[in-house]
Amino acid sequence: MDKPSASKESGNSTVRQRLGAMFSRGVDAVGGWSSRRLLHELQQVLNSALSDVEGGRHAAAVADWYAQARPAQRRECWLLMSERFPLDDSAIGAAHHVYRQARGTGEQAQAEVNLRQAFSAPRTRLLQRFSAFSGGVRFLVDMRAELLPELRRDKRLAALDSELQELFSTWFDVGFLELRRINWDSSASLIEKLIKYEAVHDVRSWEDAKNRLDDDRRCYGFFHPRLPGEPLIFVEVALLREMAAGIEPLLDVEAAPADSNKASTAIFYSISNTQAGLRGVSFGNDLIKRVVEQLQSEFPRLKLFATLSPIPRLRSWLESNIESLLKSAPARTRQALGRELGLATAPAAADMLAALDGVAGWPEGSACARWLLGAAAQYLGRGLTPEGRPLDPVARFHLGNGARIERINWLGDPSPKGLRQSCGLMVNYLYDLKRVERHRAQLAQGKPPLSGAVEGLLS
Amino acid sequence: MDKPSASKESGNSTVRQRLGAMFSRGVDAVGGWSSRRLLHELQQVLNSALSDVEGGRHAAAVADWYAQARPAQRRECWLLMSERFPLDDSAIGAAHHVYRQARGTGEQAQAEVNLRQAFSAPRTRLLQRFSAFSGGVRFLVDMRAELLPELRRDKRLAALDSELQELFSTWFDVGFLELRRINWDSSASLIEKLIKYEAVHDVRSWEDAKNRLDDDRRCYGFFHPRLPGEPLIFVEVALLREMAAGIEPLLDVEAAPADSNKASTAIFYSISNTQAGLRGVSFGNDLIKRVVEQLQSEFPRLKLFATLSPIPRLRSWLESNIESLLKSAPARTRQALGRELGLATAPAAADMLAALDGVAGWPEGSACARWLLGAAAQYLGRGLTPEGRPLDPVARFHLGNGARIERINWLGDPSPKGLRQSCGLMVNYLYDLKRVERHRAQLAQGKPPLSGAVEGLLS
Amino acid sequence: MDKPSASKESGNSTVRQRLGAMFSRGVDAVGGWSSRRLLHELQQVLNSALSDVEGGRHAAAVADWYAQARPAQRRECWLLMSERFPLDDSAIGAAHHVYRQARGTGEQAQAEVNLRQAFSAPRTRLLQRFSAFSGGVRFLVDMRAELLPELRRDKRLAALDSELQELFSTWFDVGFLELRRINWDSSASLIEKLIKYEAVHDVRSWEDAKNRLDDDRRCYGFFHPRLPGEPLIFVEVALLREMAAGIEPLLDVEAAPADSNKASTAIFYSISNTQAGLRGVSFGNDLIKRVVEQLQSEFPRLKLFATLSPIPRLRSWLESNIESLLKSAPARTRQALGRELGLATAPAAADMLAALDGVAGWPEGSACARWLLGAAAQYLGRGLTPEGRPLDPVARFHLGNGARIERINWLGDPSPKGLRQSCGLMVNYLYDLKRVERHRAQLAQGKPPLSGAVEGLLS
Amino acid sequence: MDKPSASKESGNSTVRQRLGAMFSRGVDAVGGWSSRRLLHELQQVLNSALSDVEGGRHAAAVADWYAQARPAQRRECWLLMSERFPLDDSAIGAAHHVYRQARGTGEQAQAEVNLRQAFSAPRTRLLQRFSAFSGGVRFLVDMRAELLPELRRDKRLAALDSELQELFSTWFDVGFLELRRINWDSSASLIEKLIKYEAVHDVRSWEDAKNRLDDDRRCYGFFHPRLPGEPLIFVEVALLREMAAGIEPLLDVEAAPADSNKASTAIFYSISNTQAGLRGVSFGNDLIKRVVEQLQSEFPRLKLFATLSPIPRLRSWLESNIESLLKSAPARTRQALGRELGLATAPAAADMLAALDGVAGWPEGSACARWLLGAAAQYLGRGLTPEGRPLDPVARFHLGNGARIERINWLGDPSPKGLRQSCGLMVNYLYDLKRVERHRAQLAQGKPPLSGAVEGLLS
Repeated sequence: MDKPSASKESGNSTVRQRLGAMFSRGVDAVGGWSSRRLLHELQQVLNSALSDVEGGRHAAAVADWYAQARPAQRRECWLLMSERFPLDDSAIGAAHHVYRQARGTGEQAQAEVNLRQAFSAPRTRLLQRFSAFSGGVRFLVDMRAELLPELRRDKRLAALDSELQELFSTWFDVGFLELRRINWDSSASLIEKLIKYEAVHDVRSWEDAKNRLDDDRRCYGFFHPRLPGEPLIFVEVALLREMAAGIEPLLDVEAAPADSNKASTAIFYSISNTQAGLRGVSFGNDLIKRVVEQLQSEFPRLKLFATLSPIPRLRSWLESNIESLLKSAPARTRQALGRELGLATAPAAADMLAALDGVAGWPEGSACARWLLGAAAQYLGRGLTPEGRPLDPVARFHLGNGARIERINWLGDPSPKGLRQSCGLMVNYLYDLKRVERHRAQLAQGKPPLSGAVEGLLS
Repeated sequence: MDKPSASKESGNSTVRQRLGAMFSRGVDAVGGWSSRRLLHELQQVLNSALSDVEGGRHAAAVADWYAQARPAQRRECWLLMSERFPLDDSAIGAAHHVYRQARGTGEQAQAEVNLRQAFSAPRTRLLQRFSAFSGGVRFLVDMRAELLPELRRDKRLAALDSELQELFSTWFDVGFLELRRINWDSSASLIEKLIKYEAVHDVRSWEDAKNRLDDDRRCYGFFHPRLPGEPLIFVEVALLREMAAGIEPLLDVEAAPADSNKASTAIFYSISNTQAGLRGVSFGNDLIKRVVEQLQSEFPRLKLFATLSPIPRLRSWLESNIESLLKSAPARTRQALGRELGLATAPAAADMLAALDGVAGWPEGSACARWLLGAAAQYLGRGLTPEGRPLDPVARFHLGNGARIERINWLGDPSPKGLRQSCGLMVNYLYDLKRVERHRAQLAQGKPPLSGAVEGLLS
Repeated sequence: MDKPSASKESGNSTVRQRLGAMFSRGVDAVGGWSSRRLLHELQQVLNSALSDVEGGRHAAAVADWYAQARPAQRRECWLLMSERFPLDDSAIGAAHHVYRQARGTGEQAQAEVNLRQAFSAPRTRLLQRFSAFSGGVRFLVDMRAELLPELRRDKRLAALDSELQELFSTWFDVGFLELRRINWDSSASLIEKLIKYEAVHDVRSWEDAKNRLDDDRRCYGFFHPRLPGEPLIFVEVALLREMAAGIEPLLDVEAAPADSNKASTAIFYSISNTQAGLRGVSFGNDLIKRVVEQLQSEFPRLKLFATLSPIPRLRSWLESNIESLLKSAPARTRQALGRELGLATAPAAADMLAALDGVAGWPEGSACARWLLGAAAQYLGRGLTPEGRPLDPVARFHLGNGARIERINWLGDPSPKGLRQSCGLMVNYLYDLKRVERHRAQLAQGKPPLSGAVEGLLS
Repeated sequence: MDKPSASKESGNSTVRQRLGAMFSRGVDAVGGWSSRRLLHELQQVLNSALSDVEGGRHAAAVADWYAQARPAQRRECWLLMSERFPLDDSAIGAAHHVYRQARGTGEQAQAEVNLRQAFSAPRTRLLQRFSAFSGGVRFLVDMRAELLPELRRDKRLAALDSELQELFSTWFDVGFLELRRINWDSSASLIEKLIKYEAVHDVRSWEDAKNRLDDDRRCYGFFHPRLPGEPLIFVEVALLREMAAGIEPLLDVEAAPADSNKASTAIFYSISNTQAGLRGVSFGNDLIKRVVEQLQSEFPRLKLFATLSPIPRLRSWLESNIESLLKSAPARTRQALGRELGLATAPAAADMLAALDGVAGWPEGSACARWLLGAAAQYLGRGLTPEGRPLDPVARFHLGNGARIERINWLGDPSPKGLRQSCGLMVNYLYDLKRVERHRAQLAQGKPPLSGAVEGLLS
């Protein structure tokens, strides 16, 4: 799941609470297990003499124990799961040998079947049995959310993490997801989750939530049968008469709702993933495309589909690159910057960074503003990782989906967070379904697709 | 899916019709593809430059083409899928080498992750993309149903079959199945499927179906979100005051419904798998256990849960073993048999087999009847495959689930099919949830669990 | 409810069964009540010291008793309900006097309120309390269905009948009805009711029902929250490319479904009321209009909405009017008739009636056929009751709704029933929503609206 | 609808807003109607030449006009409805004459039918046609809510009001109401209404609402198919281990939810009617009984069902009766009161009233407290209207339902509103379903049923 935005800091503590709450019923019965007992229980989960349901009961008992376990115990559980149920090396070796012999003969297919069987790790069956009881998928997703931050520190967890991701990719296959509209008639418990999970523009109150679900808005989420009542990802859309340049009017709870039947433009102004444990499982891409199709059929007058997005790492990128940015600027520009900032000379790197704190006061057409817009265009349109992907996570997400950078808006988000991360700027990424594949091809060649206006900012 | 009963002969033609009907919309557009074109389209399905949705569109085009393809073309499609998307042998070799080196070191987990990646066949991704469009899972299940009968003749298809089964095992994981009651308020289209899929006792009319869904009956099926409106397996239950000894009263549409609140016994008298394409994916086991739990909570008076089942291969087993059966019978018995059959001497094998055609006329306590019951007890209670599994497919299913052979009923099913396959006999397999694991353990030691009465028939 | 067609003969026995089945639980408890006991219970139902719920319990007890009562006891119950809870004559007299005095003064409104109160019969409250328990409305509707055939014989029942009709008119007000589509995904129990209630063209089998619910058909019914799962009236529609001239192709279960998206014409070929007890409560009118609106929005290509209807009393009208019909025919016509019928002279009345039995063999353009079409046009287009309403019940229904007689179809229904009642003819009544009010106005002036073609048949 | 508590002041303005919003679509089309035009439109509504649907269209047009009409225009609409569609006096006179003649003869029933027809006012048909369009019932209920406060000032409106009430009594008959649980999974729009309509203890925030819908609470409402998503009345219940003595713990959002499975007592702590326009239509009575039954079946351990209720008119009753209360108190009591209040002598009426402002500071066992509890017991247990009904509206409601006054709680509600209206006291009314009818009988004899403890306060 290419996260288009930073997740909430509170994510893990919530997961922990839920893990605690969900399974607390078993507390008395389970008590404190020794490592040996835990390993024994895990082995019982995949005891092949047991039926799936019976194995599932043992899995539920492990989840019960886990719910009340201390951090160190949970960590031990991860390690046991990761290390004690590995591949059968010699069986793989033997089957691979046979397979190699069989290549090109009529026996190849059967040899592949055998190799495939030799390859199936006990861990796979172990984890699959957790899906047999009703809260089991929830448990695994939450466990992975807890586990992920530890991954870097302890390489031994990689096998468990990788296998969970693979399993989730199959379970949460896009064909199993249900697109559902969320509005003010949705359940309060669901809207409460929206408020909690919204990762781009915090929901400040129930009135704020209601405004975002009003008649001139649309909100859609993907749901999965095994995580009922839980949106995996959701997107908020405003139906407008023109491409939005700033976020404030959209979040104004006092503004009267527009007539959505007269709207020409759909603005995707927030998209939030909710399940940290599903990292690497991608569905945001499909969400946007399916929502565009949905909106087109409901509102045939809609002609333009675009986002209004932050540039969350612009400020930190500026901090790292300020020297070279200033150096590469024409002398005349540097002098104008110095003048506007009230300096005697062209600004040094430190001056410029200090000045950025006051960006909210810069006039729109000023040299400073033009310089900043140009720097942002360079960051978004030229900044690529060594693998050729956009540097900015939000750009990576939308350009990867086939969008184009359409416009960069001056002071689109003057909130403290907007100023701190994005220097107040916001971007419209344009989704033109007919050009999606062409845009993706351009990106693959290392050229993020830009509108003429954004091209202009680069020169 | 251990099929407890023979599937309908018409299975495949139905699948073919559906495959034809479902996708016929694309007929004009698709036309006849050359092998080259087909291979190209399959490669497009897993083109990694495409999004899941875009790849899914190519998969849907293949399904459209398939729907109108001739048998030989379909066969070619299977072969391409099976042979052209194999494992990457050298990548596996390399990764396996590294893995072997890393065993026991801190790098083992990452090496496993890498080996796992090397192992992922393109075919896996190919098939998964078929799940991205709405009829895709339906397509794969039906395609496998068509493919299965060809498997023995053409070994090259094994890789495709095995991979489909593995995929289905994850998708149709028991945690994703929904148990739903089916009754006369269910949709006519669903009940029509019940009539079509019923594999044990044919449903003769809508009145017959209504009788099986009456107040003193229960019918439950497992449903999956990707095959909506389609029961994967279903079971029919009668609520009675005693253990049923024969099927006729249960199928009598004239009989007045009993008062289910006074019932002490639940009789499972039919269990049918519906999807030939899901062979090897097991869920019948869980169905029975979950239905028992469901019934216990709805009717706390229920004390006994048992089946009323056919012995579908009894007659053919008798034909193969008649010589030794007669030989091992005491002389007195053989003479009695001869007398009752109106022969001058003890019957020869051929005599006995010929006489079996008239089994419906044998008096219940006669020597012939007793001899046949004994032979049936031996077949069910002693007849094991070299791997130690029961010979009879229905016995294999229920004993494998932890049931016990409780009673063999004389002329329990006097229908032509009952006489032809089971010599008119029917068995009650008893489900005692508290002893299920114990019974499974006995079976694992080569001793099918029997009631005292059935033990008695053996001596 | 102007019944467009004869109800099933079995109607009352079904009602009686249901009344028996619904309340049989109470059999033992209730036993046989004396008249005195029955009257006492009825008085308890409206005991004002009791709450609605408590009063409703007594009403339920009466319904329980009624379910097992003999015909004579039920009849007594009706009489008690009709005669023992009458208006309070003197209170009405007094209140009416005051009201007359108050007319035109500021006290008039209050005087009306008082008169209204004086007028409320205890019977009204009695019947309303039957609505307080869940099967109560069902009970009253079924009781009236039983009562209606007795009305003519026993005038004393008129008060009860009239009050029930008034109550039903409020409860079954069109605003409380829900229009629902019925198709093959509807519950089997609902489709079973369709089969039972279909009053125009008998449903011969479940296959026949399925054909009428196929993709090129639509079936809609009105439902009411107090009679759940019970269609009050339903209509069957075929989507075609031209106005249907005969019923057989529509009922042919072998015919392949047409492509409904290419249809230009919606043919209403059956409309059935289901609740005899709701006679006089009109909703068929609204059903057709709402279905036309529904179809227009789903299929914008539809341009023509018409029925294909029987002329159920044509034959009996011919029998009564054959003399004058023949007399008024031109001599040339009469001679042609005689010739075609193989008579030496023009046919006498008896000859003509006898010949009608062979109508199925008459060639379409023959003199006989033309004469019969002319007679039918006269019956439909000129035949009015003294109150100026169409003689034919189906014509009365559709013309009353604002339809026009569009075409009379030769041998549109060659079934035995069609020949026996309608001499094989069928009519298309055309619904043109823009002219509905104009057509109603024409009818009110005694001129049923006719197409030019039907006008032509009259001359 | 005996309102157990004061309605919100904002009631009417809300209704007006809704009437404005609901029908604003028609604004341009309708414009300003003259009185003549309005009368004409009303006459069209009941034009018998029109179908119900057509008449309903005119009714909808009137509602559209009304939505934007000024107060004076609305008032005129009411008067036209009330005065221009009266009873047909002479037809009633004639029919009444015939009826009188027919009494006791076989013609009586038919004469009653005729009298009934003569009596049907055009106004009835007029109002019924408003139910034919989807927002029509909503319109009538809201119109009556607006009309009710004017009733006293203008007697001419009585006929309209009375007829509306009669119509609503049939439409909102208890058999048509659906009891539904409301919890945190209910729609946000519904919970928003709860917050708005709660009339006893204001809901201060969404957290407050969530607390009242938590696992140890139950909330039920009655819903009607014609006012979808709108609770007509709702009740809030807490599941506890003992009879609650004060409201604060129940409204404490920080308190952890109790284990509802261990609860022995259900406390009804708030019951609110929501529709001012349904005044006089009673369903609160049935709500409590049905909720008790519901709770009993869900929680078989529950043994005690009681309310925790305010005494909203206690303070004003004290103000009117303070003189006689003091006079009738024993001298010793009066002296003790004076002493506790720091007065030199026994308190005068004015002193006592002034002191009541400080009731929150009175110690529980003090003479002042005991005197106040005694006065409250007298008010509740002895205070009857001339018609013999309890003075206090809440007592009237619960005693009328068959409850008993169980306990009066000192400082049960120390909120400003609680102190201002109820002097901080709260009452438990006990619902013992087995004694409901007995209690109602006692009340009918002028003796409100009291517990021993409350009896004790009276002496």
